[in-house]
Amino acid sequence: MSLSRKLLAEGLGTALLLAVVIGSGIMAERLSGGNVAIALLANTLATVGGLYVLIEVFGPISGAHFNPAVSAVMAWRGELPVGALVPYIAAQLVGAMLGAWLVHAMFDMSIVQFSTKLRTGTGQWIAEGVATFGLLLVILRAPAGRVSAMVAAYIGAAYWFTASTSFANPAAVFGRMFSDSFAGIAPSSAPGFVGAQLIGAAVAVVVHQLLSAPATAAESTAAGEARHV
Amino acid sequence: MSLSRKLLAEGLGTALLLAVVIGSGIMAERLSGGNVAIALLANTLATVGGLYVLIEVFGPISGAHFNPAVSAVMAWRGELPVGALVPYIAAQLVGAMLGAWLVHAMFDMSIVQFSTKLRTGTGQWIAEGVATFGLLLVILRAPAGRVSAMVAAYIGAAYWFTASTSFANPAAVFGRMFSDSFAGIAPSSAPGFVGAQLIGAAVAVVVHQLLSAPATAAESTAAGEARHV
Amino acid sequence: MSLSRKLLAEGLGTALLLAVVIGSGIMAERLSGGNVAIALLANTLATVGGLYVLIEVFGPISGAHFNPAVSAVMAWRGELPVGALVPYIAAQLVGAMLGAWLVHAMFDMSIVQFSTKLRTGTGQWIAEGVATFGLLLVILRAPAGRVSAMVAAYIGAAYWFTASTSFANPAAVFGRMFSDSFAGIAPSSAPGFVGAQLIGAAVAVVVHQLLSAPATAAESTAAGEARHV
Amino acid sequence: MSLSRKLLAEGLGTALLLAVVIGSGIMAERLSGGNVAIALLANTLATVGGLYVLIEVFGPISGAHFNPAVSAVMAWRGELPVGALVPYIAAQLVGAMLGAWLVHAMFDMSIVQFSTKLRTGTGQWIAEGVATFGLLLVILRAPAGRVSAMVAAYIGAAYWFTASTSFANPAAVFGRMFSDSFAGIAPSSAPGFVGAQLIGAAVAVVVHQLLSAPATAAESTAAGEARHV
Repeated sequence: MSLSRKLLAEGLGTALLLAVVIGSGIMAERLSGGNVAIALLANTLATVGGLYVLIEVFGPISGAHFNPAVSAVMAWRGELPVGALVPYIAAQLVGAMLGAWLVHAMFDMSIVQFSTKLRTGTGQWIAEGVATFGLLLVILRAPAGRVSAMVAAYIGAAYWFTASTSFANPAAVFGRMFSDSFAGIAPSSAPGFVGAQLIGAAVAVVVHQLLSAPATAAESTAAGEARHV
Repeated sequence: MSLSRKLLAEGLGTALLLAVVIGSGIMAERLSGGNVAIALLANTLATVGGLYVLIEVFGPISGAHFNPAVSAVMAWRGELPVGALVPYIAAQLVGAMLGAWLVHAMFDMSIVQFSTKLRTGTGQWIAEGVATFGLLLVILRAPAGRVSAMVAAYIGAAYWFTASTSFANPAAVFGRMFSDSFAGIAPSSAPGFVGAQLIGAAVAVVVHQLLSAPATAAESTAAGEARHV
Repeated sequence: MSLSRKLLAEGLGTALLLAVVIGSGIMAERLSGGNVAIALLANTLATVGGLYVLIEVFGPISGAHFNPAVSAVMAWRGELPVGALVPYIAAQLVGAMLGAWLVHAMFDMSIVQFSTKLRTGTGQWIAEGVATFGLLLVILRAPAGRVSAMVAAYIGAAYWFTASTSFANPAAVFGRMFSDSFAGIAPSSAPGFVGAQLIGAAVAVVVHQLLSAPATAAESTAAGEARHV
Repeated sequence: MSLSRKLLAEGLGTALLLAVVIGSGIMAERLSGGNVAIALLANTLATVGGLYVLIEVFGPISGAHFNPAVSAVMAWRGELPVGALVPYIAAQLVGAMLGAWLVHAMFDMSIVQFSTKLRTGTGQWIAEGVATFGLLLVILRAPAGRVSAMVAAYIGAAYWFTASTSFANPAAVFGRMFSDSFAGIAPSSAPGFVGAQLIGAAVAVVVHQLLSAPATAAESTAAGEARHV
C-alpha cells in the first residue's frame, strides 16, 4: 500500500470523523430544545456508529489512526515508519479542518468560523488525560478484529464519564476549533487539551508495559504474537 | 437462486425497511411531545436495528440492496447481471410504496397520502451527496460478514451528522413521498435528493478505486481476494 | 438434555424476559416524567439487551423460544418433538406470570393484579400480525450464531415501527395481562393479539418457503445445511 | 501471568468501571435538567460501553472480575486459586474507591465524600438478589468470546428492570459509598445490598448446576468442554 493511499485514508477518515462529531452535535443542539443531555446522547450515538464504521473502512489501508497521539505511539512502537509520522499528522489535521467545513456547508452555516467555547481548568485537563489514557490502552490491548467495536464503545462511555466529554485526540481538538457549535473548543483552550492528551497517551504506554511485563524478551515476543492470532 | 425469489426478497425487504423508517417516525412523533431530538433518536435506533436484521435476512438471497443506487453500482461492477437491474429497481420502488401503505394501515391513517414536507436547498443536497457517498464506500469496503452491522451503524450516524437526516436511497425517497408524516418528503423535493444521491454514489466508486488503486491487475486480484478471506 | 431441564430453561427464561419487559416499563414510566417516548426508549433498550442475553444463555439448553408461536412453528417443522410442545407452552405461560409477579415484588407493588390497558382495533391487530411475521422470518432465516443479536435488534425496531409496540408472543401477552403498568394489556384484549400473532407466524412460514423454494428435495437439503455451516 | 499483574488489572479495571458508573451519573444528572429517565439512559449507555471494553481489555490478564461476588464464585469453582481471593477483593475495593476519587477530581468536586442516598427495603433487596443472580448466571453460561458483550448487555437491561438499578457487585457498592452523587449509596444501606448480592450469587450457582445437571461425572466434563470450544 503506497504512502499516498494511506494519507488519503487518514485525511478522508479524519474528515468524516470530524463531520460526524461536529455535524451530529449541530443537529442535536438544533433539535433538542435546550436539553443538553439529549443532545449529548445523540452526539454520542452518532460518534459511536461513525467510529466503528470508519475504523473498519480505513483500518486495512492506513491503520485508521485519525489521531496524532495514536500515530505517535505507533511510530514509537515501530508499527508506523518514523518517516510517515509527520505526513500522517498533517493529513489528519487537514482532514479534521475540512470535515468541519463540510459540515458547515451541509448545515448552511459560514464555512470558516472559530469556536468561542472555553474548555479549561484542572478538572478538564485531568479528564482529557484520563480519556486519552483509556483510548490508547484500549487500542494497545484490543484483540484483533475487535478494535473497531472497542474504540467506538470506549469513546461512547468516555463522552459521559470524563468531565471534558473526551476529545482524546489532538486532531479532533484542531478540527473542533473551526466550528463555533456544540462540539467546538476555543483555540485558546486547545494547548491545554493537547498537552493533557499527550501525557495520558504516554501513561498508557507505560501501564501497557506494566500489564504485559514479561520476565524475558522471549516471553514478550510470544505474548505479542498470541494477541494477534 | 431464481430471479423471482431475488425480486421477492428485494421487494419484501424494501417494504419492511420503509415500514421501519416511516412507522418508527410516526410512533416517535406521537409519543415525543414535540421534542424532535427524542423522536429522531427513536427513529434512528429503530432504523439501525431494522437495517441490521433485514440485511442479514435477505442478503443471502438478493444481496439486500433495497436501494437503486446500490443496485446500479453493483451492476456497473459486474456483481449484478445488467438485465436484473431494472427488475431490481422496480421491486424496490413497489416495495417502498407498499411499506408506507402497510404503516398507514397499522397506525389507522389514510392508506394513500403524499408528503408535504419540503426538503430542498444546497445544504440538503450536499448532505444527500455526502450521505450516499459514505453508504456506498461502506458497502464497497466492508469486510465479509460485517456489512450488515456496518451499514446499520453508518446510517445511524448519518441520520444525525448529515443535515438531511440521510435518506441516501432513491427507493427510500420514493416510499417516503407516500407518507405525510415525520419521515416524509414532498414529491417536489424528490428529484433534487435523488440527483444528489446518484452523484454521491458515483464519487464513492471513484474514491474506492483511488483507495484500492493497485499498480497491476495481479495486485488488484490479490487485494480483492484478501478482503474476502 | 432431559426435558425437565429444557422446561426449567423455558420457564426461567420466559420469567426473566417478562421481568425485563415489565420491570423496565415500570422503571421508565416512574422516571420519565410523563414523556412516553423516553419511557419507550428505555423499555426498548432494556428489552434488546435482555433478549440478546437470554437467548445466548438458554438457547443451548432449550432453544430459547420463550414464545408459544415459536415453539409451535418449531414443532411443525420437526425441530421440536411434538410431545414437548404442550409442556413447553405451559412452562412459558407459568414463567411469564411469575416474571410479572417478581417485578411487582421488586417494585413494592401488589403481587397479583390485572392490566386495564385496552389494546384493540384493526390497526393493532395488523401490527401484531406484522410484528410476529417479522419475528418468525428472522428466526427461520438467521445465520447460526447471529440469532440472538438479530432477534434482539428486530424486537428493538418492532417496538417502534409496529403500532402495537410488538408483543409478538402469546406468552408475553399472557404475562403482561398480570401487570397493570406501562407494558400491560387488558385480558379482554388478549385474544385479538394472540390470534393476530398466530396468523402472522403462519404467514412467515409460507413466505420462508417461498424465499427458500428449492426445485428439488436435494437442493432443499443442501441449502438447509449451508445455512448452518 | 504473575499475581501482581493480575491485581493491577483488577484494581485498575475496577477503578475505571467505577469511574464510568459514577462519572457518567454526574454528567448525566448535570445535563438532564431534572429528567431522571434521560439521566439513567445516559448512565446506562456509558456503563454498557465501558463494561464491554474493560472486560475485553483486562479479561486476558485477570479474568476481569471487578466484583468480589464473581471472584468468590470463581474461587469456589476452582477457577481462581483460593489464596488469590482476598488479594483480588482488596484490589477491587481499593480500585473502586480510587475510581470514585478520580471522578471527583475530574468534575471539580471534593475528593473525599460519602453518599447520603438511602437505598433500602425489601423490594430493593429482592432487586439486588435478582440482579446478581442474573449476572452470575450470565457469566457462568456465556459462550467463550461473548462474555464481554453479554455482561454489558445484561447490566444495561438490569439498570432498568430491577428496582435498585442493579449494583450487583459489592465493590460497586463500596465505591459508590464514596460519592454523594447520582450513582451513590449511603454507607448504612450497603450491608443490605451486599447481603442480597451474595444470596443472589449463591442461587445462581445452584441454578447453573440444575440447568447443567449431568447424569454422570463424565457427561459433566464433556458438557463443560463443549461450552468452551
